[in-house]
Amino acid sequence: MTNPIHVVGISGSLRKGSYNTALLHAARELMPDGMTMEIADFSGLPIFNADEDQPPPSSAQAPAIVQAFRDTLRAADALVIASPEYNYSIPGGLKNAIDWASRPPRDSSLNGKPLAIMGATTSLLGTARMQYHLRQVCVFTNMFPLNKPEVFVAKAQEKFDAEGKLIDEMARTLIRSQLEALLAWTLQLKKV
Amino acid sequence: MTNPIHVVGISGSLRKGSYNTALLHAARELMPDGMTMEIADFSGLPIFNADEDQPPPSSAQAPAIVQAFRDTLRAADALVIASPEYNYSIPGGLKNAIDWASRPPRDSSLNGKPLAIMGATTSLLGTARMQYHLRQVCVFTNMFPLNKPEVFVAKAQEKFDAEGKLIDEMARTLIRSQLEALLAWTLQLKKV
Amino acid sequence: MTNPIHVVGISGSLRKGSYNTALLHAARELMPDGMTMEIADFSGLPIFNADEDQPPPSSAQAPAIVQAFRDTLRAADALVIASPEYNYSIPGGLKNAIDWASRPPRDSSLNGKPLAIMGATTSLLGTARMQYHLRQVCVFTNMFPLNKPEVFVAKAQEKFDAEGKLIDEMARTLIRSQLEALLAWTLQLKKV
Amino acid sequence: MTNPIHVVGISGSLRKGSYNTALLHAARELMPDGMTMEIADFSGLPIFNADEDQPPPSSAQAPAIVQAFRDTLRAADALVIASPEYNYSIPGGLKNAIDWASRPPRDSSLNGKPLAIMGATTSLLGTARMQYHLRQVCVFTNMFPLNKPEVFVAKAQEKFDAEGKLIDEMARTLIRSQLEALLAWTLQLKKV
Repeated sequence: MTNPIHVVGISGSLRKGSYNTALLHAARELMPDGMTMEIADFSGLPIFNADEDQPPPSSAQAPAIVQAFRDTLRAADALVIASPEYNYSIPGGLKNAIDWASRPPRDSSLNGKPLAIMGATTSLLGTARMQYHLRQVCVFTNMFPLNKPEVFVAKAQEKFDAEGKLIDEMARTLIRSQLEALLAWTLQLKKV
Repeated sequence: MTNPIHVVGISGSLRKGSYNTALLHAARELMPDGMTMEIADFSGLPIFNADEDQPPPSSAQAPAIVQAFRDTLRAADALVIASPEYNYSIPGGLKNAIDWASRPPRDSSLNGKPLAIMGATTSLLGTARMQYHLRQVCVFTNMFPLNKPEVFVAKAQEKFDAEGKLIDEMARTLIRSQLEALLAWTLQLKKV
Repeated sequence: MTNPIHVVGISGSLRKGSYNTALLHAARELMPDGMTMEIADFSGLPIFNADEDQPPPSSAQAPAIVQAFRDTLRAADALVIASPEYNYSIPGGLKNAIDWASRPPRDSSLNGKPLAIMGATTSLLGTARMQYHLRQVCVFTNMFPLNKPEVFVAKAQEKFDAEGKLIDEMARTLIRSQLEALLAWTLQLKKV
Repeated sequence: MTNPIHVVGISGSLRKGSYNTALLHAARELMPDGMTMEIADFSGLPIFNADEDQPPPSSAQAPAIVQAFRDTLRAADALVIASPEYNYSIPGGLKNAIDWASRPPRDSSLNGKPLAIMGATTSLLGTARMQYHLRQVCVFTNMFPLNKPEVFVAKAQEKFDAEGKLIDEMARTLIRSQLEALLAWTLQLKKV
């Protein structure tokens, strides 16, 4: 028996009724066997300031909430990011969380993580611009995003019920298939 | 006599000794006649949450500090953004400020603003990835970034003195030339 | 009486039944008064090789067909590019045409041109990745793409009739509105 | 004894004295044991036209030169692309070669290939914009580009001798290290 793959999910939106947080919840429900998911939250992180995150012996260590966020990510075998697109890019809050998580540069909590990206939006273009740019961020942070399948949930207002449950069967199938791909990809990258 | 062009400058870094804040100060010093510059600061803004920024009659109005930030930008004839690159992209804090500033969507404080982008970095690639992505953000927010000249200040540690004054003559000339281009571009876009 | 704005349109596809060539034809039909459109074709251009395009006194001048293509573009007041997306980017043939047209660097046939970008595709994401990347190309070539409105014609197979005529009323309205914006933008940039 | 990893290298430039073709030659010389390299050439490929590349039973099959190019790539265990940047993007000729190679979509000659990207340029920014965009193309074509190390050879005119031999020791070390990473990455992705 092997240990399950432990996935940490991050939603790019702080909105209470966020479609992307709801997408993460759907993902947690749709996961294949052999996978567990914990949801991390960046709402309490301050705006990044390098003066507050210096290497020892400086006493300017990152705040405890940042260190806890990093620890949560560091313990993950893989990450899932579900995010809206703000202004044709990554939400600033999510990017700020990535900026904190990416440090210290040589041993960051993102380093080497397999990643699945998904996004829900009420528009038609469905977070595409956010997703392609996030992939560029992965080059520096040394994450390994899945190529396929890509998950774009457009017209989100038609695909969740009033309780925020994803009810669109095509979207559910696609997410399940992405998580299966993430599981296989994570295992592939772990092989020795 | 015409009124001077009023520029608002934003630094993408909160670091006290930030090269990019220093670049803005250099820009203020190098401005051509007919231009004034005020520096705006996003350090106090919370992480964006749409639940806290709803249209009337909702009582969930953006916090006062956000409204003041928007007012500062709205009063500008043009913007200058000087920013480092974090993880091959826009710093999360700067993007978060843009996310707040970009609302309400139909009448945002960024709408229609001419923009000059500059960046300083200790590396060789000099904020290029941040700058090209910021241009994509400008499409949605309807800003008008200058095409040329582009300002990349690489090896920044050699180009500022101990007091943070930009001492590199080539960089100074380039910045002056960019500000002259911004002045002309702003006037061009105002023509009726 | 002023001269009409002369627009040159380029389709990114060589396919006989190309939706994007059909989009250009629709654009020509929908143009506002004060605008004329000529369609340029890059099908005969060789693959770019700098050895075959040297400055005088070298005898290695660009082939006549390239020079004619450049002349066509140089005579334009503005450009319209209608293109599919190949492999999440600009079609190689279109990019090759841009590479030829962008030279000589200091006085290229693209320099300073206002530009409208549109794209049709049978998929949902509708050439978005092509369009945002093309905007990056415009920075170097010093073109001035419209920010808005953006024209994405998705599910193209439902929007043209058997003769290749654009029959979707919303798409027609959008294109008309983009061309009106291009006319205004071109006149704005010409103001002295 | 295992078979060596067979790499196919592609230069993005057709120029006889191309720094990027010279970079490929350096790479071939610097390869670790267990790797062979063949150089593929796209100079004879026509501009892509989907009408000339239809699935059977259509008789419009891709020209023989295209099929040979695809066969060369299909036989590779991994690819190396060394390319200049044209107009802040991928050279049209290289993109055109990728467009041909990417078909048929479900079983393309690029599908699943590990990839190392390098670029040489006389400027300072060193093909960065080309490289990051090429990574976006890899998402659709399902290639697996190395995250690190990235190879940017700036000021190329100082780094090759008159015969086109790469003489810069740092660049040579970097390329060797990238090829070692490509070998390890290719073996990792092959593990069953």
